Amino acid sequence: MFKGLSAFPLTPLNASGIDEKAFLNILKRLTDAQVDSLGILGSTGSYAYFTREQRKRIATLAVQHADNIPVMVSIGAISTDEVLRLADDAQQAGASALLLPAVSYQKLNDEEVFGFYQDVSRHVSLPICVYDNPGTTHTVFSDALHARIATLPHIASIKIPGVPADIAAATERVQALRADFPARVSIGVSGDAFAGAGLIAGCDLWYSVCGGLFPRTAKAITDAAMAGDFASVAAQAQRLAPLWALFTRHGGSLRVIAAAASNLGLAEMDCLPRPLRPLAAAEAAEVHKVIVGLELGE
Amino acid sequence: MFKGLSAFPLTPLNASGIDEKAFLNILKRLTDAQVDSLGILGSTGSYAYFTREQRKRIATLAVQHADNIPVMVSIGAISTDEVLRLADDAQQAGASALLLPAVSYQKLNDEEVFGFYQDVSRHVSLPICVYDNPGTTHTVFSDALHARIATLPHIASIKIPGVPADIAAATERVQALRADFPARVSIGVSGDAFAGAGLIAGCDLWYSVCGGLFPRTAKAITDAAMAGDFASVAAQAQRLAPLWALFTRHGGSLRVIAAAASNLGLAEMDCLPRPLRPLAAAEAAEVHKVIVGLELGE
Repeated sequence: MFKGLSAFPLTPLNASGIDEKAFLNILKRLTDAQVDSLGILGSTGSYAYFTREQRKRIATLAVQHADNIPVMVSIGAISTDEVLRLADDAQQAGASALLLPAVSYQKLNDEEVFGFYQDVSRHVSLPICVYDNPGTTHTVFSDALHARIATLPHIASIKIPGVPADIAAATERVQALRADFPARVSIGVSGDAFAGAGLIAGCDLWYSVCGGLFPRTAKAITDAAMAGDFASVAAQAQRLAPLWALFTRHGGSLRVIAAAASNLGLAEMDCLPRPLRPLAAAEAAEVHKVIVGLELGE
Repeated sequence: MFKGLSAFPLTPLNASGIDEKAFLNILKRLTDAQVDSLGILGSTGSYAYFTREQRKRIATLAVQHADNIPVMVSIGAISTDEVLRLADDAQQAGASALLLPAVSYQKLNDEEVFGFYQDVSRHVSLPICVYDNPGTTHTVFSDALHARIATLPHIASIKIPGVPADIAAATERVQALRADFPARVSIGVSGDAFAGAGLIAGCDLWYSVCGGLFPRTAKAITDAAMAGDFASVAAQAQRLAPLWALFTRHGGSLRVIAAAASNLGLAEMDCLPRPLRPLAAAEAAEVHKVIVGLELGE
């Protein structure tokens, strides 16, 4: 399952709580587009803001409606005990893999990060994808730490936060990581603006925010990469530069994707969990203009 | 209650979960020393690692054993909904005040931070202390944002992350903050290494990690400050420099204070919630040497 396009959908809210109908509508776009895997309750799916019960419910719904596409569920939490409970829940819900961030409150040292992955990997029976995103978890992985974690049982993939924009440098980076890992461990690029370079540089898959709302657009890029047509990957990724620019301008992809989902009638305008807030009307209008200009409505 | 020494105790664990006996033993040192207030489930009390039920239990125990000293309880969480539930729990447990961090997963913008404090302040009936500690919450407050939040109902104190070491600069800093706030809002210094400078510069109180384990030592400093004996404050704070140096060396105060509590027989060696881990034996021995050298056993 750790190849091609892994699509990370929103978990939209409405005034009563999780908007299950909107979630299932967004999910249907992903199954219709036959993405390679679903990344449920990722950062884009706002896992960190939900209760254990809400997370179990969403994981269960996703598996029920996944149309046999493998479902990966994030089990991130600040406390290891809570992570182990979430792992049990995700396994019971029928997930195919677990996405595991090392979310920090007190900054973790390397021994603590390794010990955390060891404790969780001993507890679970499903493949684990290591989630490396210092922007949200504030945990920084050295290459040596990544290599140590990759030797643990169940570790099947690493979600890296990006690669250098320069293709030669990106290739060197991905090759260096690959040399450190067992062959069974796939490398997936995230940070959508880096996806083109990451795929050209040899990443096995794209852990994609864009693919969670615009799966056909994202899948055309991963399909080209899997076929070795790197000129097409570069051209398609470059075409989306105005979308990546919006992500940068609004402190990340989440508020932009939420506004885009709302623009497309797929979620309410105010669909993010508090304390997060939707973009202002003028900003949302600008998102709409970019979506229309790039013909992302699908 | 927002004056003098606010002492922040550990919430120690053992193999079965929260070590209530150890917690109550540490709490007794603080009530015996007649600290001015108790900061329960602060960062030192590991609030971010516990379930709602564990937090309610600890808050209840603390109020029952506080010997009429006012108890402030942290209600921090990533989700606003959870913070509101924790506020209800703390109020029902009999807390006298609420400590409110803006814990972030997605980085919050100023409107979101203000909206968060507004939502919580509208919901609660107790005084709120604004918790400003970017090192753990990754939320940065500008002075303008602090001033805006301070106008909200129930805001009674601000816990600042430190002051410049230079007394003139520290005084200027505290005066600038005070000019921005209504008179009802007290200013408390945290970051124990800054406590002496902060108190001399005019802070109303010390939100103290050191005071959560060594209350007599910390209270002698705040008593001197309240009496205007700033030479004594400076000398006493300077004497503790080896302790502050350990905090710096070990990425913050928590693992050092946990080792010190264990050294004193007040908690098990492995008393922090996973993924956090105790200091190595050699490091804990060094902590012991400093504690003995400074005669902090009390």
